[in-house]
Amino acid sequence: MIRTPFPVLTADEAAGLIQDGQTLGFSGFTAAGSAKVIPAALARRATREHAAGRPFRVGVLTGASTGRSLDGALAEAHAISFRMPYQSNSTLRRQINDGEVKFIDTHLSSMQQKLRYGFLGRPIDWAVVEASDVTRGGGIVLTTSVGASNTYLRLADKVLIELNARHPASMLGLHDIFEPQDPPARQEIAIYSPSDRIGSPICVVDPAKIVGVVMTDLADETKDFEPATAVTEQIGWHIADFLVAEMRAGRIPSDFLPLQSGVGNVANSVLAALGEHPDVPSFTMYTEVLQDSVVPLLESGRCRFASTCALALSPDMMKHVVDNIAFFKSRIVLRPQEVTNHPEVVRRLGVVSMNTAIEVDIGGNVNSTHFFGKTLMNGIGGSGDFTRNAYLSIFSCPSTAKGGAISSIVPLAAHMDHNEHSVQVVVTERGVADLRGRDPSERAQLIIENCAHPDYQPQLRDYLRLIKAGGHEPLSLSLGLAMHRQFLRHGDMRNIDWEEFR
Amino acid sequence: MIRTPFPVLTADEAAGLIQDGQTLGFSGFTAAGSAKVIPAALARRATREHAAGRPFRVGVLTGASTGRSLDGALAEAHAISFRMPYQSNSTLRRQINDGEVKFIDTHLSSMQQKLRYGFLGRPIDWAVVEASDVTRGGGIVLTTSVGASNTYLRLADKVLIELNARHPASMLGLHDIFEPQDPPARQEIAIYSPSDRIGSPICVVDPAKIVGVVMTDLADETKDFEPATAVTEQIGWHIADFLVAEMRAGRIPSDFLPLQSGVGNVANSVLAALGEHPDVPSFTMYTEVLQDSVVPLLESGRCRFASTCALALSPDMMKHVVDNIAFFKSRIVLRPQEVTNHPEVVRRLGVVSMNTAIEVDIGGNVNSTHFFGKTLMNGIGGSGDFTRNAYLSIFSCPSTAKGGAISSIVPLAAHMDHNEHSVQVVVTERGVADLRGRDPSERAQLIIENCAHPDYQPQLRDYLRLIKAGGHEPLSLSLGLAMHRQFLRHGDMRNIDWEEFR
Repeated sequence: MIRTPFPVLTADEAAGLIQDGQTLGFSGFTAAGSAKVIPAALARRATREHAAGRPFRVGVLTGASTGRSLDGALAEAHAISFRMPYQSNSTLRRQINDGEVKFIDTHLSSMQQKLRYGFLGRPIDWAVVEASDVTRGGGIVLTTSVGASNTYLRLADKVLIELNARHPASMLGLHDIFEPQDPPARQEIAIYSPSDRIGSPICVVDPAKIVGVVMTDLADETKDFEPATAVTEQIGWHIADFLVAEMRAGRIPSDFLPLQSGVGNVANSVLAALGEHPDVPSFTMYTEVLQDSVVPLLESGRCRFASTCALALSPDMMKHVVDNIAFFKSRIVLRPQEVTNHPEVVRRLGVVSMNTAIEVDIGGNVNSTHFFGKTLMNGIGGSGDFTRNAYLSIFSCPSTAKGGAISSIVPLAAHMDHNEHSVQVVVTERGVADLRGRDPSERAQLIIENCAHPDYQPQLRDYLRLIKAGGHEPLSLSLGLAMHRQFLRHGDMRNIDWEEFR
Repeated sequence: MIRTPFPVLTADEAAGLIQDGQTLGFSGFTAAGSAKVIPAALARRATREHAAGRPFRVGVLTGASTGRSLDGALAEAHAISFRMPYQSNSTLRRQINDGEVKFIDTHLSSMQQKLRYGFLGRPIDWAVVEASDVTRGGGIVLTTSVGASNTYLRLADKVLIELNARHPASMLGLHDIFEPQDPPARQEIAIYSPSDRIGSPICVVDPAKIVGVVMTDLADETKDFEPATAVTEQIGWHIADFLVAEMRAGRIPSDFLPLQSGVGNVANSVLAALGEHPDVPSFTMYTEVLQDSVVPLLESGRCRFASTCALALSPDMMKHVVDNIAFFKSRIVLRPQEVTNHPEVVRRLGVVSMNTAIEVDIGGNVNSTHFFGKTLMNGIGGSGDFTRNAYLSIFSCPSTAKGGAISSIVPLAAHMDHNEHSVQVVVTERGVADLRGRDPSERAQLIIENCAHPDYQPQLRDYLRLIKAGGHEPLSLSLGLAMHRQFLRHGDMRNIDWEEFR
């Protein structure tokens, strides 16, 4: 067991200190580095309190999504009143959509400064953070993610640490902890290359705030990734081919640009294609999550360096990284989310952003958060931070969902997270729509002809014909959302009778 | 007459050099500093060519909107094929909405880099730029705006100058010309206070590119501003009171934060209220346009310094500034639009952004470009650059338009330029909706109760009741755009029968 100068508590003792109605800032950006045993104990405590007829709910702030012991356990215990800035747990999602949990969907780069500015309207009572090491003076070495932990540790009244012995002392040096000043005295974020370090390897808190340490030895609760499919592989190759063509045309420098890639099987397929494509040079990443697929690219040199907020690796892959930590510490840096996603750095470095859409409309607007405009999926996450400031912003998705009954290309997105002003390239397995330098009617043509599924191209062309002449945007106020309504009425977006929705 | 080493041409001779189908980068950010005599001559030439049965249309790039001799004259002559990034001329607007002119509505901060990156897909044949002075070596002192002129001058094959004798030689030193490197070698934009200078007082081009100089002596064609109304004054005071309350609550520092303010009578009323409010401390501005209202604030010391892209002043006010140029050169700097609007600087300085909406929906999404989602008004301009990166982002508008027949507060914005993730505060003459830390259903309540006009509050409350339970966003796919459809059908959004649109 690691020795610690602070009181060692059981998880239940730690959870027992937390009061109903308090606000907690947890470590965790994906399951990577999420607090585990304290939230699980807190969920048990909430269940007991509820059984005794007493209210018990807390506000939960994190980096992004978390593992099942955090969002999962707390949601199942009905212990979350308020959630920010992102989540991906099915139970919690249902509670948000049922109105049980208040959720504020937030650009990840702005979470930490919103707290510092006092815009949340509540103090942070507790920081609950997983660490790999703790010094007597209040130095805290984080584990597999940074998220917003550095800010939670600094702002919280009190601190609870999950000291995770699974991580070696040599994790020290993997992190680069930096917190900007607030305006008007703010300086630049002095990152000019993904590998630049600007901060400290440890977080430092007033040791008097550290109320206790809970000893653990648990792996991150990362999910198994959905496997690639023929469709996601095709999307990956379209993107790789597109980027190579841009490089040949001189619009991407020959030493390439840093890449950002989202999470999930589409993102994995894109990275796989970039790794394998013979004409893509070796590259760097300036991104928010590294998945298993990047580790072999780092080892082969295809990826020269990766700046990220989280190592969302499977337990086996994590063990491999830990066993070779000296190699990976020279090729990976973990940063806070306000740095990995910072508009200033993303724009300066010229990041190529590659994110996944739920749906794209023919005007080039992207919905990445709400099914049918109403039902939250996960949240906007970092997609807005990267898309708006990218050198080149790419959104991709399969052209259909639900076995073809839903078209991802629609007349009007039912929720808009990224609009026509920021979305530059749309990719489905059918092909690429390059929207740069195109006006709205040209965009509509390109998206329908290059990206929509053939099952939907005729009715989308009909929609364009049905719109009254005149106007800059291809919009019918009565028919714009008709394909969504058709699905809700008939269970299938295909074969729409536009007249039904006039 | 100013002496110049370059060939002196008449405006008609200069216009005679420009060919059908070419792309022109003009000076002008609002009417301030817009090229005048060459575009007017080009319009006459186009009219003659068309009369002779020959095609004659050009691509027109500018800083933002321009004066009547540029967009007005060229549009009346049907001489524009392609327009970017912003406009505000009634004839051109009609041609864009009729599909005659291709218009790409673009974040102003990204215009110059999109050109440098080659994303427009066409070279710039001519830069046509108004100057107050020219050196033998190709040094060009601009006039009352910078816009994107420095980039057009550098990238264009050939250059035409309108040398405007109305501006004194002492304009030298008013401008701060800086053009960032392209990635991956880009450094920071080293502005830490609105008054920091990072560039040169002049643009420099290869003198061999300067084909000719046309002598002029014309004032900027600035429009008379619409006067303040009781409604706009009320909006101004709501915003001033809100900012004072934020300062008292410690969420704005006591030495305040730099302000950005849009253009028009709402913006003027806001600035007037901030200038007059006894509890607003003296402030600085980091904005894209200065109007007449700021000049007395600079003279009284209420505004300590203003960084801007354009001096959009009336001829009398401009004469006053020129007559006291030493005083104003120490209090005003004119920068390129990619610097005034740069995400990096706006976020670093902690700018408070104050922009005008066409409509705001109850989810907190803002339409600032398209009437009824279809008909272009002007364009997004800089509103996205400032809003997304602001410390505090405020949108305001009168609660109704067309004598009350249109509600600016709607269930669903018919076009979305700024979404719920970026819009923090909504203000109408009725009051303030502070959306920070609020989830979608709380936002809907606040916007309806604090901002909507009483004529519309009952039907907006009905809309909320009619939405099927469940879901994170207060959206009905069938009724979301029904108030817009009601207006198109019945000429009034009031007294809607929701059943008519089911």
